[in-house]
Amino acid sequence: MKADEKLLMMPGPVVVPSRVLLAMAKPMINHRGKEFSAMYGEIQSISAQLFNTKADNISVISGSGTAGMEAAIGSLNNKSDKILAIENGKFGQRFKKLAGKYGTVVPLEFEWGDSVDLGKVEEKLEAGDIKSIAMIHNESSTAIRNPAPEIGKLAKKYGAYFILDVVSSLGGDTILMDEWGVDIAVTGSQKCLAAPPGLSLVGVSEKAAEEMKNITNRPYYLDLLAYRNSATKELKETPYTPAVSLFYALQEALRIVKEEGIENRINRHYLMTKAVRDSMTAIGIEMFPQLNKYSAYSNTVSAMKAPPGVDGEEIKKALGKRGIVITGGQDHLKGKIFRVGSMGSTTPLNIMNTMTELEFVLFTLGVIESTGAVDDFASDAMKDLYV
Amino acid sequence: MKADEKLLMMPGPVVVPSRVLLAMAKPMINHRGKEFSAMYGEIQSISAQLFNTKADNISVISGSGTAGMEAAIGSLNNKSDKILAIENGKFGQRFKKLAGKYGTVVPLEFEWGDSVDLGKVEEKLEAGDIKSIAMIHNESSTAIRNPAPEIGKLAKKYGAYFILDVVSSLGGDTILMDEWGVDIAVTGSQKCLAAPPGLSLVGVSEKAAEEMKNITNRPYYLDLLAYRNSATKELKETPYTPAVSLFYALQEALRIVKEEGIENRINRHYLMTKAVRDSMTAIGIEMFPQLNKYSAYSNTVSAMKAPPGVDGEEIKKALGKRGIVITGGQDHLKGKIFRVGSMGSTTPLNIMNTMTELEFVLFTLGVIESTGAVDDFASDAMKDLYV
Repeated sequence: MKADEKLLMMPGPVVVPSRVLLAMAKPMINHRGKEFSAMYGEIQSISAQLFNTKADNISVISGSGTAGMEAAIGSLNNKSDKILAIENGKFGQRFKKLAGKYGTVVPLEFEWGDSVDLGKVEEKLEAGDIKSIAMIHNESSTAIRNPAPEIGKLAKKYGAYFILDVVSSLGGDTILMDEWGVDIAVTGSQKCLAAPPGLSLVGVSEKAAEEMKNITNRPYYLDLLAYRNSATKELKETPYTPAVSLFYALQEALRIVKEEGIENRINRHYLMTKAVRDSMTAIGIEMFPQLNKYSAYSNTVSAMKAPPGVDGEEIKKALGKRGIVITGGQDHLKGKIFRVGSMGSTTPLNIMNTMTELEFVLFTLGVIESTGAVDDFASDAMKDLYV
Repeated sequence: MKADEKLLMMPGPVVVPSRVLLAMAKPMINHRGKEFSAMYGEIQSISAQLFNTKADNISVISGSGTAGMEAAIGSLNNKSDKILAIENGKFGQRFKKLAGKYGTVVPLEFEWGDSVDLGKVEEKLEAGDIKSIAMIHNESSTAIRNPAPEIGKLAKKYGAYFILDVVSSLGGDTILMDEWGVDIAVTGSQKCLAAPPGLSLVGVSEKAAEEMKNITNRPYYLDLLAYRNSATKELKETPYTPAVSLFYALQEALRIVKEEGIENRINRHYLMTKAVRDSMTAIGIEMFPQLNKYSAYSNTVSAMKAPPGVDGEEIKKALGKRGIVITGGQDHLKGKIFRVGSMGSTTPLNIMNTMTELEFVLFTLGVIESTGAVDDFASDAMKDLYV
């Protein structure tokens, strides 16, 4: 089966709608001109409604989500600044590494898949002198949603800056940047926005921008203050040559978001992940995340424990042969879990396809004794989407 | 006139052929799979022939040329390492800033537009202890080609690493990375390769890669050693999510380079810039660069002095109204020069268009007394291209 006939059901990159792909076929324009500026303005305006902040707070970096994370950490912290890095998965670990590179890292590690314990966060903050808190909102490696509003409150209480990675949630889950007290929020183009990879959207509060002026060793290409200053000029631009074609794609992807409506889009994501969970649970497959009062299952990706005696990679491979690309666990979770993304332009039909094929694969692997069970559960979860 | 009807004759971004634009309409693939690896391999293989080095030496970063420059400087130098930064234009100045960020900069500044004085370079090297030399090969801000082979020899003589920016020359001028003793060469996708902006191709010698292991504070997203390690694995990949659509475009752009033939392509660039110079000189417009024995006019962009009493920006604007986008001078050169790019997929017809329109604009501005002079000179310079 050819690659371009495969259904991508990973937590990014996701299937990109033809409208978005074809937007990239537009000719080049000068990125120091009015046309580019107008496009940048539209991108800011729509995406600001997803971040729930002001349009001027949005900057776009030509680079992956990791580039945005580095820009956030490196532009807000001096080497002597203490950064509380909350880790309960692969991306939290990456944030911790970045924190150690630009600041003085104060690690707070939980088992991957476990929930963040707010008591332990407060203990670290009480111990004093934390400049910034770095956390992943939607830890896609384990499919858990971490408690952003609560961490925002703690950040406020202890006078810390709050840097939140919303790479795999913005566009598929509610983000209230201003209300939660997030100082910098970072996302990528290739997840719930359903654009191609290569751009990072970063929301920067005025307070954070002000503080960046005090940071002496900000990165160069990833200097977030430079991006913000260029993005708030009358002729909006980027400090370095932007990936113009990807801006075309992002503009079109955001127009689609606007047409669908943000609430509808988030609800679709919710019901699709619920359909995955309900149908998997119905056939005895357990969810991987360990929730507590303040965490939740991810709205955009689901992580299941591999059944006893079965390697998660086998499930992934068998499904791949049938034309559906899901993903496994990372690092020490490899083989132990398998993950299904429900991001971006994924449809209920894609979910039905994936669940029935997954059920068949589990049947052929001897995990379940018959097929035909998942349809009802998945359909029922998504019934509000059938209009 | 609408933006997408304008002819881009700047030193990047350039007109991108439809074949390349449409390549981006292909669906997403998993960037951790065989299809992506095969595409990356093809990109390495063709571009290595432009760098004149081994395919495995090529890495591709999702970011602009500046990102590639930062990756080069930051991955090869510790803070205490002395970097000789040769500056004779805007991009040399940028290299100097980057050098100061990651190492200890030893500046060597010439007037923008002047040639590099090899004697002064050797003086700095003799003073001792230079770890790396950073130079722009084709300084597009002033349209001069700097003496890369000679600097390579000096680097060898004094045991320094040689970092060469070939952003605006690779694909349009001869680059002999291995023969010249270049340790790291950096280019961008949106210049002579005629792909959209957003990727940086970096050639890294084995010697440089070995030395990078000793660098303690390499950038994170722009860690060149990480890119090289990922690019030389059997399953070729990038350390962070790549801009897959831009890889499609680059692959197609490089296929076009291969079809044209590298020698033919470089010759076309040479004859097109010669046509610009010959026709401008014929009507009394002076070239801006001050050449010496070791420098040359750029093979890919031409910089002209604004005629007495005329602002270079006026020429740019008047031509823009007529549908052709050229560019002016940067920083203190603004208004003093105007520049015409001849990069990538630019055709002799585009050059003829631009020269005759430019002549007309100069006529309307009162610089020349009649029109009709440039055609012969431009045609004659490019006669080998009319086959």
